[in-house]
Amino acid sequence: MKVVEARVTPVAFPDPPLLNSAGVHEPWALRTIVELDGGDGLVGLGETYGDAAHLAAVRRAAERLVGLDPFDLSAIGTATRRSLGAGDHALKVFAPFEVAALDLQARSIGRPVYQLLGGRVRDRVAFSAYLFYKWAQHPGRPADEWGAALDPAGVVEQARALVQQFGFGSIKLKGGVFPPVEEIDAIRELRRAFPSHPLRIDPNCAWTVQTAKQVAAETTGLLEYLEDPTPGIDGMAEVASAAPMPLATNMCVVSPADLRPAFERGAVGVVLADHHYWGGLRACAELARTCAAWGVGVSMHSNSHLGISLAAMVQLGAATPELTYAADTHTPWQGGVDVVTAPLPIVDGAVAVPDAPGLGVELDRDALARLHEQYRRCGVRSRDDTAYMRTVRPDFVKRRPRW
Amino acid sequence: MKVVEARVTPVAFPDPPLLNSAGVHEPWALRTIVELDGGDGLVGLGETYGDAAHLAAVRRAAERLVGLDPFDLSAIGTATRRSLGAGDHALKVFAPFEVAALDLQARSIGRPVYQLLGGRVRDRVAFSAYLFYKWAQHPGRPADEWGAALDPAGVVEQARALVQQFGFGSIKLKGGVFPPVEEIDAIRELRRAFPSHPLRIDPNCAWTVQTAKQVAAETTGLLEYLEDPTPGIDGMAEVASAAPMPLATNMCVVSPADLRPAFERGAVGVVLADHHYWGGLRACAELARTCAAWGVGVSMHSNSHLGISLAAMVQLGAATPELTYAADTHTPWQGGVDVVTAPLPIVDGAVAVPDAPGLGVELDRDALARLHEQYRRCGVRSRDDTAYMRTVRPDFVKRRPRW
Repeated sequence: MKVVEARVTPVAFPDPPLLNSAGVHEPWALRTIVELDGGDGLVGLGETYGDAAHLAAVRRAAERLVGLDPFDLSAIGTATRRSLGAGDHALKVFAPFEVAALDLQARSIGRPVYQLLGGRVRDRVAFSAYLFYKWAQHPGRPADEWGAALDPAGVVEQARALVQQFGFGSIKLKGGVFPPVEEIDAIRELRRAFPSHPLRIDPNCAWTVQTAKQVAAETTGLLEYLEDPTPGIDGMAEVASAAPMPLATNMCVVSPADLRPAFERGAVGVVLADHHYWGGLRACAELARTCAAWGVGVSMHSNSHLGISLAAMVQLGAATPELTYAADTHTPWQGGVDVVTAPLPIVDGAVAVPDAPGLGVELDRDALARLHEQYRRCGVRSRDDTAYMRTVRPDFVKRRPRW
Repeated sequence: MKVVEARVTPVAFPDPPLLNSAGVHEPWALRTIVELDGGDGLVGLGETYGDAAHLAAVRRAAERLVGLDPFDLSAIGTATRRSLGAGDHALKVFAPFEVAALDLQARSIGRPVYQLLGGRVRDRVAFSAYLFYKWAQHPGRPADEWGAALDPAGVVEQARALVQQFGFGSIKLKGGVFPPVEEIDAIRELRRAFPSHPLRIDPNCAWTVQTAKQVAAETTGLLEYLEDPTPGIDGMAEVASAAPMPLATNMCVVSPADLRPAFERGAVGVVLADHHYWGGLRACAELARTCAAWGVGVSMHSNSHLGISLAAMVQLGAATPELTYAADTHTPWQGGVDVVTAPLPIVDGAVAVPDAPGLGVELDRDALARLHEQYRRCGVRSRDDTAYMRTVRPDFVKRRPRW
């Protein structure tokens, strides 16, 4: 089997005004959908970031993949690396093709992807409710279904809605938006409302080491883990030495080169894997093995995404014994919009691992065309939460740490 | 596809009197051949140690594998773990079945095993000449084709024969047999005879830290790496801090739990992977990724083995970019005896990676029956180099360190 065509399609879909330390989500989220067509109706799917520079890199790589064997991940990797321009991120460009190649491999042999990753170790992959401070609506647009969440009460209300709809068994709050004292209050209110749900907060490096230590002390006994409270391995190590809970990260450990310094300094207790930038599902499985050998836990990171990435995360979670934390996902914020015919549903806080061949999802070509048309018209070409925030609050400056 | 039968066959084959710090190889080397029969003529092959306790554990595990899907390595792992008795080594018992399952998977889809390990990164897997001090013959038996090697001249002569016959491009001497000064002389003579061959010596922990440091200093510029000069991670770390060359090990880093302490203390610069005790080919590929992230090199370890293990090592080497050192193999010491119909040949110091489905070797049932009959008759049931040495030199005591 050879790749007869490698298709790359940017898409856009509505995104609520989710606040974070960098600013606020724009009205449109971007993704790139990748198809490796093996002929005979067999197509492997991948999904990655939609920013213009990355899209261009993915397109350049795709051109080199025609004629390659989807089982030859090494050749796909080599071809991808040879296509890179200055500034391109090799593992990010390779990742969607790795996923698509695994999907194509698995479909061609009539087996689920998890069987190519070592076999299924669980039947359901747990996800966490992902709370965001948010405005009631984008400026000048109608209110979305979720309403505003700008204080502890709003956060708890959002959590109730998400837990009711999806049955989530653990809860993460994206912090770094308001002064820490307010976000600590939100955590306390969440604990009151959800006495037994594991809780996490992720301020995206919005806090100084001193502030982070203080928040850690004040949230003793409340948090399953504290994610990226402060920038850099050194800062995280300093916070970790004082914090009563494990620190988690998807910001200071983002490539194999970060593992040694972070682990040697005891900077993190949990690494959030993300196949989109670690270089695919196999790389994340390998990352999990390494973490386990160092006694470091494994969770999973998410950006705004569609159903192909969700399916890929589920396949990885199905085959990765080390993934003992519920994974992040932005799925609830998509409002059901997707490029797959039947998105994997989150029920009781988890996705049942599909036994269908490949990733377990099928491309909806009409939806793909619609979301691509949205991409063409929406005007957004690269995610810039900060610039968008400044259209509303011209004095906003992205600062990490801020407090 | 399901495993319809899991066959376990112990075999014995002649082994020359190879000397090492524990004693001397007995006249018979033992291995266990594992077959996972998937029906329809598809059989996956594995090979492991032949010691009685291990053989019993492998047999117990095999009973539980019938009915499992060879693509479900997770289920095979679980079944194997559930079969273990006290003292059994989980990863050692799992390993031959992992290899056999990968072989069966690959055969069933008509693809080489390396495609299930991430794809081929090289066309040839390099092996090292593996020199041993040795007697001319086992006591009371006729001389073997290799003759004695008990001094530097004998070692060089053996090296010449091996390099001439197999084209090896690097050379390893099993040391720990004679006082270090004699073995250093052997290394010096090897360097004179082979000016550009990378050289290694492996005394199997026969030296104290102080002796190891001294040998390291005296062999400055002569060795590619110094393997297991002294016992334990702490001792290795102390030697490594003074040694001008990297230290390699297959003795102080033998499981995931050893990685962190060994790497944190800088005890080793090269880890010798061995799928027989790391838990299979996938585990070794993952080990290699971890080593790379820590800047630690990867080579490959060998015990006396047959052609199934050689093929497994070649498949792993084909798919493992981190394997930048020539691997060890005892193949030349088998004298062409094997259980496969066409052993992969070592030519110009390397094995060309086969493109045939599976491991690339086929079981020779006649040979298997012959070698099993040898097992039945030979009387050896567990490897014991020390006890055998004491039949010749009753005063021999295994001591690590000895010097």
